[in-house]
Amino acid sequence: MSNTTYTINGDLLIGQNTEHGSEKPFHAVNPATGEQLAPAFGSATVADVERACVLAGQAFDAYRETTLAQRAAFLEKIADNLLDIGPALIERAMQESGLPQARLEGERGRTVGQLRLFAKVVRDGAWLATALDSALPQRTPPRPDLRLRKIALGPVAVFGASNFPLAFSVAGGDTASALAAGCPVVVKAHGAHPGTSELVAKAVQAAVAACGLPEGVFSMLHGDGRTIGQALVAHDAIKAVGFTGSRQGGMALVRTAAQRAEPIPVYAEMSSSNPMFLLPNALARNAARIGSGFIDSLTLGAGQFCTNPGLVVALDGPDLDTFCAAAAAALEGKPASTMLTPGIHSAYVDGVSRLAGAAGVTLLARGQQGNTACAGQGALFATDAATFLANPALEEEVFGASSLVIKCSDIGQLRQIAEYLDGQLTATVFLEVCHAMVHGGPFPATSDSRSTSVGASAIDRFLRPVSYQDLPSWLLPEALQDDNPLQLWRVRDGVLVQA
Amino acid sequence: MSNTTYTINGDLLIGQNTEHGSEKPFHAVNPATGEQLAPAFGSATVADVERACVLAGQAFDAYRETTLAQRAAFLEKIADNLLDIGPALIERAMQESGLPQARLEGERGRTVGQLRLFAKVVRDGAWLATALDSALPQRTPPRPDLRLRKIALGPVAVFGASNFPLAFSVAGGDTASALAAGCPVVVKAHGAHPGTSELVAKAVQAAVAACGLPEGVFSMLHGDGRTIGQALVAHDAIKAVGFTGSRQGGMALVRTAAQRAEPIPVYAEMSSSNPMFLLPNALARNAARIGSGFIDSLTLGAGQFCTNPGLVVALDGPDLDTFCAAAAAALEGKPASTMLTPGIHSAYVDGVSRLAGAAGVTLLARGQQGNTACAGQGALFATDAATFLANPALEEEVFGASSLVIKCSDIGQLRQIAEYLDGQLTATVFLEVCHAMVHGGPFPATSDSRSTSVGASAIDRFLRPVSYQDLPSWLLPEALQDDNPLQLWRVRDGVLVQA
Repeated sequence: MSNTTYTINGDLLIGQNTEHGSEKPFHAVNPATGEQLAPAFGSATVADVERACVLAGQAFDAYRETTLAQRAAFLEKIADNLLDIGPALIERAMQESGLPQARLEGERGRTVGQLRLFAKVVRDGAWLATALDSALPQRTPPRPDLRLRKIALGPVAVFGASNFPLAFSVAGGDTASALAAGCPVVVKAHGAHPGTSELVAKAVQAAVAACGLPEGVFSMLHGDGRTIGQALVAHDAIKAVGFTGSRQGGMALVRTAAQRAEPIPVYAEMSSSNPMFLLPNALARNAARIGSGFIDSLTLGAGQFCTNPGLVVALDGPDLDTFCAAAAAALEGKPASTMLTPGIHSAYVDGVSRLAGAAGVTLLARGQQGNTACAGQGALFATDAATFLANPALEEEVFGASSLVIKCSDIGQLRQIAEYLDGQLTATVFLEVCHAMVHGGPFPATSDSRSTSVGASAIDRFLRPVSYQDLPSWLLPEALQDDNPLQLWRVRDGVLVQA
Repeated sequence: MSNTTYTINGDLLIGQNTEHGSEKPFHAVNPATGEQLAPAFGSATVADVERACVLAGQAFDAYRETTLAQRAAFLEKIADNLLDIGPALIERAMQESGLPQARLEGERGRTVGQLRLFAKVVRDGAWLATALDSALPQRTPPRPDLRLRKIALGPVAVFGASNFPLAFSVAGGDTASALAAGCPVVVKAHGAHPGTSELVAKAVQAAVAACGLPEGVFSMLHGDGRTIGQALVAHDAIKAVGFTGSRQGGMALVRTAAQRAEPIPVYAEMSSSNPMFLLPNALARNAARIGSGFIDSLTLGAGQFCTNPGLVVALDGPDLDTFCAAAAAALEGKPASTMLTPGIHSAYVDGVSRLAGAAGVTLLARGQQGNTACAGQGALFATDAATFLANPALEEEVFGASSLVIKCSDIGQLRQIAEYLDGQLTATVFLEVCHAMVHGGPFPATSDSRSTSVGASAIDRFLRPVSYQDLPSWLLPEALQDDNPLQLWRVRDGVLVQA
């Protein structure tokens, strides 16, 4: 297969147009060297935001009523186009993120897999959540024929994340699930990987044209979150927002959305310290093995995964000492990794300094020093439960390979910590020998815990239910017609049937 | 069956306590006579709100993990207790709302039916939305065992509506669906029917005790929306809000929720003009019949249904003249009906005056005058599309039996009106001879269009998904165990099966 060549010109993509933004120029930075990468990118104006949103609004009615087969084919075409870019995509992403080749190839596989999963989800049609209640003309009062399906909310604004330049960015999970639901998408690209974003956006733009869809189905803008991002979320045509990033950034969008004349849902995946609870039996049997495994998890991807274990909670005593010694030894052997951006690196250095200087917190170990511009050197600290409970700043996430062990005097105190912590994306409990993971997201892990940004049910965020009363079968959407042409599982008079 | 006697003392119910509120005393008013009804009610203090919310928070962990059978039995016990109150409930509701006996008996049937529907929904367990992905240890990278279910959000604040003192109030759809989801409920009773609210709340309180549930599962407070209502929505323990009422009241709660440190969903069912589109073929065949049927719908329940048709959109011409003449004649024969409260009545009178005085709007007919204190006299107006589009005030809902016919010069203008209108709860389209109704709720019909407050899927508003990774089967919730003890339909490795 020969690779498709898209050039990186530093452009915005507004529908099928490709043009250079006239606002603040900027460059991507290679975090390993600190050097600027060519070319210069141009930021969008507020007028560009307006154009992209109006196009998305115009595309909505036609796009949301495409057939399931058409929409699935579109998602698969995006996946194919992404793969067709070939090594050029991985090379640019490596330069912009400092992430290694194998990790980015795996992430591309995940991104393509997500797009294909949502193609399958669209074809299956379970997301339509169809329910059919037959007319009961003899009942008092009589019941008319009622049919329910979910329809798309409207155009969605997607904000790419820094830490997954492919899987949580321009054609990542938010975009895939919104497009699957029938929502046009306007992406605000992350400033840390604008070239990667342009390549991916061109793959999506080409898929829109190849599938004969209205051009407003997809646009991508560069620019500052505080101006372009806010203008996007405030725009009338936008009906939902997907965001992955910092608590500060996410909450700024939540506030903007709440101030609109028409409030809209903001699905912001934000900070999480992902506490790990080590129960006594597990520690007694496997303290050393859990300790070294924990450091592998802590340092994975320079500690920049959303699920990075930033807190460890356990009972004080010899077993915890064994855990800490094994973890310290493992960390001291870990090389530093290049972090995603100079800004993330300096925030990490500040966070580690803050912990190092906090009263009642002791340093257990540091990882090895690095020699790249943005090398993140691992850090492991310890404190006791009383100190932790008395100082809320110790709970704040340090984004990167830093973790804090909280020593509890008894199970009651361990439980107290569990009740005290804010909502988390994940929590891990070591019980006996097994490794148990609970995945969820109360605030502030997410701004809206009723849904997920990963997995097939991500599509539910962008749908709303509609009920049809006494409409003749031929005027109903296929999903609700009497003879079930889509062969959906449907709730018919309260019973789930495929008839 | 002998009836259960609950006395109306003007009390707050906080858990299993019954006590008189120490803030602003107030009385219910009989809208037919304008007279105050005994006894005096006491409003809650902010400290009372705090106690109710803390109790709800304490009850949450135990209540959300009750078995499906326990929770279903609780909902059925509430339904039984409501029926056991007997005629006293209907008599008090008639005095407080001015609604006729048959209507309130029907509404009680609906309320009891909703509670029993949610008992069935709970037992069925489809709301758990279970998905099980098997471990793939040989895959690169290996996939762990993953299991997903939905769990309850947390305590819910419910605001009763004036226009359905039973079905959308203390034990109405919001309360039934929240309790079904596993959420404790704190109700802010509507000031228009405090005695009805106290009777219903005592039926729920007795069911909590009879089922051996933690007392914080249910509380009910009286008081002002601006103080008690706001304090309730602002309280840390509250994790979601259900509201039915005015756009102003709903948006005030949406703003309060958005200002919390932790944002929470507000499901506010607000205003809607429920436009009715009369297409030319339908008018040509049935103009007179549709006109008189429309007036039946307009005046139903003094025009105080959420689905009341406040706008009629059609092409100008002889057929529309026939429709208007038939509607005018029908309206002139309709007696006035007592409206729910003096406040609602005076807002209706103001709204009708505003329309009567608007430039380009003509009066087609009035209903008959009434002789009760809050008699609502029907009103039908007409205007042309250009006038309507030029004056946004004409789109504002007039709550009551008032409607505005918009005359369009052609189908393009009719379409323009459809695009121009705000989001609606319902829209009706007369096509040929059939009567088709579309049910949905973009803003401002609701503050959150992704869900419904009526029907079985109302439960989804109060649930969030949780994923479990590599947990041994015996530690998993029953819904996710290998041998499927609840016999749920589950998505197992992507396929819907009951195994």
